[in-house]
Amino acid sequence: MDTTVLARRIEAAQRLLAERGIDFLFVAPSSDLIYLFGYPAHPSERLALLIIPRTGRPQFVVPVLERSRADAQASLVDIRTWEETVQPVDLVGDIVRSVPRPTIAVSDQMWAVFLVRMLEVIPDATFISGTSVLRELRMVKDREELDRLRRAAAMADAAWEEFVATARLTGKTERQAAEELTELRAKHGLEIHGIGICASGPNSAAPHHITGDRVIQPGDTVIFDFGGKYEHYSADVTRTVHIGEPDDEYRRVYDIVLRANEAALAAVRPGVACQDIDRAARKVITDAGYGEYFIHRVGHGLGLDGHEEPYLVEGNTLPLQVGMVFSDEPGIYIPGRFGVRIEDAVVVTEQGGERLNHCSRELTVME
Amino acid sequence: MDTTVLARRIEAAQRLLAERGIDFLFVAPSSDLIYLFGYPAHPSERLALLIIPRTGRPQFVVPVLERSRADAQASLVDIRTWEETVQPVDLVGDIVRSVPRPTIAVSDQMWAVFLVRMLEVIPDATFISGTSVLRELRMVKDREELDRLRRAAAMADAAWEEFVATARLTGKTERQAAEELTELRAKHGLEIHGIGICASGPNSAAPHHITGDRVIQPGDTVIFDFGGKYEHYSADVTRTVHIGEPDDEYRRVYDIVLRANEAALAAVRPGVACQDIDRAARKVITDAGYGEYFIHRVGHGLGLDGHEEPYLVEGNTLPLQVGMVFSDEPGIYIPGRFGVRIEDAVVVTEQGGERLNHCSRELTVME
Repeated sequence: MDTTVLARRIEAAQRLLAERGIDFLFVAPSSDLIYLFGYPAHPSERLALLIIPRTGRPQFVVPVLERSRADAQASLVDIRTWEETVQPVDLVGDIVRSVPRPTIAVSDQMWAVFLVRMLEVIPDATFISGTSVLRELRMVKDREELDRLRRAAAMADAAWEEFVATARLTGKTERQAAEELTELRAKHGLEIHGIGICASGPNSAAPHHITGDRVIQPGDTVIFDFGGKYEHYSADVTRTVHIGEPDDEYRRVYDIVLRANEAALAAVRPGVACQDIDRAARKVITDAGYGEYFIHRVGHGLGLDGHEEPYLVEGNTLPLQVGMVFSDEPGIYIPGRFGVRIEDAVVVTEQGGERLNHCSRELTVME
Repeated sequence: MDTTVLARRIEAAQRLLAERGIDFLFVAPSSDLIYLFGYPAHPSERLALLIIPRTGRPQFVVPVLERSRADAQASLVDIRTWEETVQPVDLVGDIVRSVPRPTIAVSDQMWAVFLVRMLEVIPDATFISGTSVLRELRMVKDREELDRLRRAAAMADAAWEEFVATARLTGKTERQAAEELTELRAKHGLEIHGIGICASGPNSAAPHHITGDRVIQPGDTVIFDFGGKYEHYSADVTRTVHIGEPDDEYRRVYDIVLRANEAALAAVRPGVACQDIDRAARKVITDAGYGEYFIHRVGHGLGLDGHEEPYLVEGNTLPLQVGMVFSDEPGIYIPGRFGVRIEDAVVVTEQGGERLNHCSRELTVME
């Protein structure tokens, strides 16, 4: 990534630290590290940590075996390598020791094992959530980020359309069906991080079902919740299909969820509170008598992470801004029977909400 | 997973908590949660947490939308669901409040954001690393775990052998080469979690190179570090190949690394300290004059996680026990030029080390 962009983001983070009296921002391998530093890395037991002070030059603490990779970013930071036989958190302690009783914001996805050690090594520090700083930077997407999100969404759409046109589901396990869709996701350019959710029959009533070995049968509802990444940015789509002709109840529930999805989209405009998007979808479902079966928020932000701020949930009064991107994914889940969820990515524009996904949301019958 | 096995593991954890005066073990989505509770879940912003008290019944705090999945484990725990509009860490606070000034071991991979909130909600608690408890349980593999590790290793071996027999690398990018190997890994039954490392030419001198768009050319050294999972258990293998006939230096370095790999294996027996396995490999490389280029420990434990205890590193005096499984992966990395790494999984038996990987370690030339 362009180091000019990264330098600007680090400066923006430092301005926020100064405004709030935070002394340091600690950023571990995660989307936060990609956003601020362009450095993709898996979280692991070896500490890699970007330390951004309120003023001055950031430090990057990194295992010596990543030295050559880190050097590519040396214009942005001082690189502090550690050898396999030392305790890297001690090095972190040395770096922050100049500030007494520091307030340190840590990136949310840093592993707890490192924070436990920091509590020992920097006992006078106050640790707070890094998202308090990072969400302000990451929630509103710039043009390049939006372009990547659009392309990721288009790839997911293309995979879905080919899947609906070509796949036969009856007799396949959920896992086999999900793998078939995964091959199409890869073919259309998405980087794959897991097979996603395929939830069939009664399993479709569990929003976080783990794709398993149930065999798909005529009469099943089947939910596919899938995504992937394009240049680190996420797609996230859900479509629900029926195997063979559905009965009236399925048609009714499907129609309610589709109208809830549309009501949420219609409620999007700059300045509206996040919770009002949830309320718009929930009202449709509640008015239709299914309120108790809509057991999750209507959406989550989408960007470098598959779930990120802003969350569209009751109690979140944050006003929407142009450039925010989030999922619109109402669902109805009737325990032991079936569920329906329809999910698109939506960007906030001056004119209102604009969907990034364009594959069909109409009731779809597959074999 | 068999709930009898899980119940026994939870009891073993409680015995360790009692021995060490730890009041609670908090286990977040991670391999620890699979090991103790058979519950695979992605870490996310929604808290799911197994709370194991020193005595009495564990509690599982879970978002209401996972209720139906959690119910499958209800014989082991009390399930405490939380709705989207509440702060789940408050619920955790209520559960542990009966114990004043509790000592709480948290699983290492729990996200820091939850620990930051716990520091506020349970301000009198002392938090320590959960691995202090969990490593004793997880390091020594039982027969069923060993069987899964063997099968994962065999799948990786089969994928590699087919790859060497069929792939032509010249003109492909690292990513294309890695994707070709990934397809074979999937074909041979491994669950895929990323494309692994393909590091070509000078990139092979970076042990943690991120697979990229460099085009592979005649004369290149190419390192493939790959794995995958079988029923949650990891494979992890590295092989280094040369494109076209190698020169004498490459042959010399390859031979040294192979001898180091064999020396580490030969040093394995119950009771030997972890650091002695590292020393055995390092001595071969140092005696050959390349000591400064072996910039990482010789290995890491392998099981539900791709990296876990025990770590074979200088300073780790932990004695090996029968049933421990770890990687044996010495390497030589000459900056700007090339690197060689050879990695197998090894299990400790009464008789010594036994390799789980059997694909060829001989010097391999590809086109």
